[in-house]
Amino acid sequence: MSEAALTLEGWYCLHDFRSVDWAAWKTLTNDERQAAIDEFLALVETWETTEARNEGSHAIYTVVGQKADMMFMILRPTMEELNEIETAFNKTKLAEYLVPAYSYVSVVELSNYLPSDGSDPYENPEVRRRLFPILPKTNHICFYPMDKRRQGNDNWYMLPMEERRNLMRAHGMTGRKYAGKVVQIITGSVGFDDYEWGVTLFSDDVLQFKKLVYEMRFDEVSARYGEFGSFFVGNRLPKEKVGSFLHV
Amino acid sequence: MSEAALTLEGWYCLHDFRSVDWAAWKTLTNDERQAAIDEFLALVETWETTEARNEGSHAIYTVVGQKADMMFMILRPTMEELNEIETAFNKTKLAEYLVPAYSYVSVVELSNYLPSDGSDPYENPEVRRRLFPILPKTNHICFYPMDKRRQGNDNWYMLPMEERRNLMRAHGMTGRKYAGKVVQIITGSVGFDDYEWGVTLFSDDVLQFKKLVYEMRFDEVSARYGEFGSFFVGNRLPKEKVGSFLHV
Amino acid sequence: MSEAALTLEGWYCLHDFRSVDWAAWKTLTNDERQAAIDEFLALVETWETTEARNEGSHAIYTVVGQKADMMFMILRPTMEELNEIETAFNKTKLAEYLVPAYSYVSVVELSNYLPSDGSDPYENPEVRRRLFPILPKTNHICFYPMDKRRQGNDNWYMLPMEERRNLMRAHGMTGRKYAGKVVQIITGSVGFDDYEWGVTLFSDDVLQFKKLVYEMRFDEVSARYGEFGSFFVGNRLPKEKVGSFLHV
Amino acid sequence: MSEAALTLEGWYCLHDFRSVDWAAWKTLTNDERQAAIDEFLALVETWETTEARNEGSHAIYTVVGQKADMMFMILRPTMEELNEIETAFNKTKLAEYLVPAYSYVSVVELSNYLPSDGSDPYENPEVRRRLFPILPKTNHICFYPMDKRRQGNDNWYMLPMEERRNLMRAHGMTGRKYAGKVVQIITGSVGFDDYEWGVTLFSDDVLQFKKLVYEMRFDEVSARYGEFGSFFVGNRLPKEKVGSFLHV
Amino acid sequence: MSEAALTLEGWYCLHDFRSVDWAAWKTLTNDERQAAIDEFLALVETWETTEARNEGSHAIYTVVGQKADMMFMILRPTMEELNEIETAFNKTKLAEYLVPAYSYVSVVELSNYLPSDGSDPYENPEVRRRLFPILPKTNHICFYPMDKRRQGNDNWYMLPMEERRNLMRAHGMTGRKYAGKVVQIITGSVGFDDYEWGVTLFSDDVLQFKKLVYEMRFDEVSARYGEFGSFFVGNRLPKEKVGSFLHV
Repeated sequence: MSEAALTLEGWYCLHDFRSVDWAAWKTLTNDERQAAIDEFLALVETWETTEARNEGSHAIYTVVGQKADMMFMILRPTMEELNEIETAFNKTKLAEYLVPAYSYVSVVELSNYLPSDGSDPYENPEVRRRLFPILPKTNHICFYPMDKRRQGNDNWYMLPMEERRNLMRAHGMTGRKYAGKVVQIITGSVGFDDYEWGVTLFSDDVLQFKKLVYEMRFDEVSARYGEFGSFFVGNRLPKEKVGSFLHV
Repeated sequence: MSEAALTLEGWYCLHDFRSVDWAAWKTLTNDERQAAIDEFLALVETWETTEARNEGSHAIYTVVGQKADMMFMILRPTMEELNEIETAFNKTKLAEYLVPAYSYVSVVELSNYLPSDGSDPYENPEVRRRLFPILPKTNHICFYPMDKRRQGNDNWYMLPMEERRNLMRAHGMTGRKYAGKVVQIITGSVGFDDYEWGVTLFSDDVLQFKKLVYEMRFDEVSARYGEFGSFFVGNRLPKEKVGSFLHV
Repeated sequence: MSEAALTLEGWYCLHDFRSVDWAAWKTLTNDERQAAIDEFLALVETWETTEARNEGSHAIYTVVGQKADMMFMILRPTMEELNEIETAFNKTKLAEYLVPAYSYVSVVELSNYLPSDGSDPYENPEVRRRLFPILPKTNHICFYPMDKRRQGNDNWYMLPMEERRNLMRAHGMTGRKYAGKVVQIITGSVGFDDYEWGVTLFSDDVLQFKKLVYEMRFDEVSARYGEFGSFFVGNRLPKEKVGSFLHV
Repeated sequence: MSEAALTLEGWYCLHDFRSVDWAAWKTLTNDERQAAIDEFLALVETWETTEARNEGSHAIYTVVGQKADMMFMILRPTMEELNEIETAFNKTKLAEYLVPAYSYVSVVELSNYLPSDGSDPYENPEVRRRLFPILPKTNHICFYPMDKRRQGNDNWYMLPMEERRNLMRAHGMTGRKYAGKVVQIITGSVGFDDYEWGVTLFSDDVLQFKKLVYEMRFDEVSARYGEFGSFFVGNRLPKEKVGSFLHV
Repeated sequence: MSEAALTLEGWYCLHDFRSVDWAAWKTLTNDERQAAIDEFLALVETWETTEARNEGSHAIYTVVGQKADMMFMILRPTMEELNEIETAFNKTKLAEYLVPAYSYVSVVELSNYLPSDGSDPYENPEVRRRLFPILPKTNHICFYPMDKRRQGNDNWYMLPMEERRNLMRAHGMTGRKYAGKVVQIITGSVGFDDYEWGVTLFSDDVLQFKKLVYEMRFDEVSARYGEFGSFFVGNRLPKEKVGSFLHV
């Protein structure tokens, strides 16, 4: 029997993708649309209050291509809060015009393939900063879910811990080359959603997503053991641009 | 020819997932919505009466993410009763606003890989308690369907009984670590639905689902032989909160 | 080159699954609904007349879970008649409220892996009874389509006839254990639909479907060579219960 | 590097499958429906004129099962003409009630695995007859798309030309047994649609489709290298029966 | 660890496929339709201005078959501009009648498997011409996304750089045979969309798409390592024909 790596978990995470039903949205009057936008922005302000108190974080991006038009990433301490935010959002006027396109449920995770020094990692400030992150305000976001493969001779879960640790270490070194260019947040979703992990990348230079993911694909851990779901790429939608984005 | 394990079956089981059509729901008047909620709660009360008589059980949860908004898990002694409940529910006013999202048909099952002492297991009170379970009222639920793999060298159904028994025993030991933290109900669906089994987990700590499923994935029985469908995770929706959940 | 088994074909077969659009159905008046039900029952009576003349057969079941609400299985001597019945049914008032959910086109088939004595099998009354069957009126039905696998070393169509014959014989012996409990009708669909065969099981005890399919899965012919599509399970809907099933 | 077989191409081909929206169709008045049918039949007459001039061909069939209700197969000398016919058809009144169900874009193709005598095959009348075929008016049609497999050891495109030629020759001999019973038209779709070939079979005896495709599946070229898409089977809809087919 | 090839990136690229909702489009008055067409053509003119300034390029084609009716290919220097064009287009009147069918997000890419001479390739005029291409006005277009396979022994990302370079060189020689007949634009989409590359082919002779893709399939790089998505083929829709294409 192979041994599971220790994992540390932080905030729960909902990625929520929506497509605007522009034709229906246009049937509203200007005043109705403005009221819907105002209601939505007021909701976002409650999220900002939460973030200011360090009790969660969120990010809003537009999405390129037809997979979705908007993407919300929400971090909260409990699964119940994620569910409440989702339900509150679904009850808004604006949500009537935002067709569900995709979602992903996970929890911020650190995989501990490194030997521990015996101290409580949850007391470590650097670990806490990574488990309970305030999301960066970069120009671009990239999200994709992934599995570790279990197929014939390429079965990640049958590898000894030592081999998995070495493969992950090499993988981590590829990632480190992008330090300062790309922020990566790994969320675990085993038992929560259809893939095992979600990967969310933040960067001011969208091309770095391509370069990072492509270079990593040659790491044995991705080449032999990575199975990838859909990729979403987007541009930041700051609160003050929501109105013009939705203006018709 | 490989030998099938003996299985014991109890109550039939329907998992029924629904998405709320909030935009349509809002077009009703307050009175119409209240009437729909009252009708639904009256139906739930008949389910409670059945449960109180030990003639079935049920659970109602909200679901996190876009896969669904609500989930119903219904246990009954016959397939006809499941069908009747489903049809009665579909005829309610509320159901007009609950779009079908996914369902799963199965029967509570105990797989008997252990040698028997010759007595009738259906007379064993502990066995009966597990075949005809009253569902716990935990804060969280997790559901996923699964198959045993039949692929190249990883073909569960070609393994000798003895090997399958040993693999299942090791798997059971992983599960036992979570005793007191997670209640697991296995339902068999060979011949009833698209996967071979449904797994329903109950816990007050949602993180235990992730830890249990992740740790089990390293058991050879999952690593080499497990094929998993969609995962659904949710929060309990007690009867007294249905009104506020549906309040718009 | 591997040799194809001889097959005998009987009546053509359409499995037709529908979901009731209850919300739309409720918008009709009682009189309109009754007229739609009467029109449908009159159509079923023409099917009964055909069955009474031994010129076809049919079965109507409700389906458990969200895959469908009703299932029709229709046997006729020609593909044209199946098409006409389908079109006539689609033109009824009731069909406006029965959303297509799945269908399967096939022909009743006997696979002849046994040596023949040289006589014309189509003259054999037992063979004729199986090729042109009057469907039983059991409480339950189970339907699933299937393929024989052609994958790497598990390629059914590359096996010598003798080996396929032996595997099918063992498989048949598993089936024979369920004689008197389950009636099995095999329909061939190579060239007609997306899988190679449809399997329709009839039983008064729905649990026998699970036990039969599970036990057979350990036969090498299923374990190594079976690929299965969706499973549908249902309860008989006798003509006299159509009204109450559709009553809203 | 393996060598591609020479191919000869003739008319471009569009298979277009539609489902009738019977409920919407019934909302028209008799006169409106008749006008829509007349407009459609006038369009078909322009197709007949083209066919009479040997500048294309077409076939119209009803389809059995829920995959579609009608199927159009159109052959034309250019891709532009196919596109124009499709657009003209989409603009008709009838097309408002014919929901797109599936389509396939290809070109009539002869694969030349036989040694050539050096003459221009496009000058050969028999070759021309097969590249620019007038479609037969048989009672039944069968269509399916297919690929040659590239999977592990079963990789068609890695086989030497000689081996592919031998496998195709054996396959052709199976086909030849059905000469006079089944007309087969192969269309190539590499670069045009999702599979590599479309296979369209015509026969007055629908059972011959099943027997031919089943027998061929045991040819090594299908058993090891064939990957099949959806199968569609239908009955001829002569122009004079369009009215009664669409009568409600 | 295998080494990633160097890649050069140019303009970002959006492929956007739409299906016309002809029935809804017909409900507009002639004047409304003309206004929608005029608004769309004015938008296209802004694209032409951008192209004239060499700050992007675009192409508009109709698509054969039911996958889509129209296809837009848009090249721009930034991901934000692609997103803005998409949103502006979605807000037009015409877009209310153009149902999203498929899209693809990528960036023009040159894969550098050849040894470099040390100079900055972005200063090379030929390289610039290929990274920032003005799209040709050919009669036909072909688009498909693709992956390099990572499956068992056929794992592109585990091959040494030298072997990949040789395989790509042979592949390039097949492509070079079509020089003058087919223009090929490769766009990379790792991290941006679901496949790793998009391939867009331009030709005045649609048959060359088939011949090129078929011949290349026998190159080992495609035969063993190519995984292909959906293929789209279309005919050019010059601005002056938009009106007649949309005329009903």
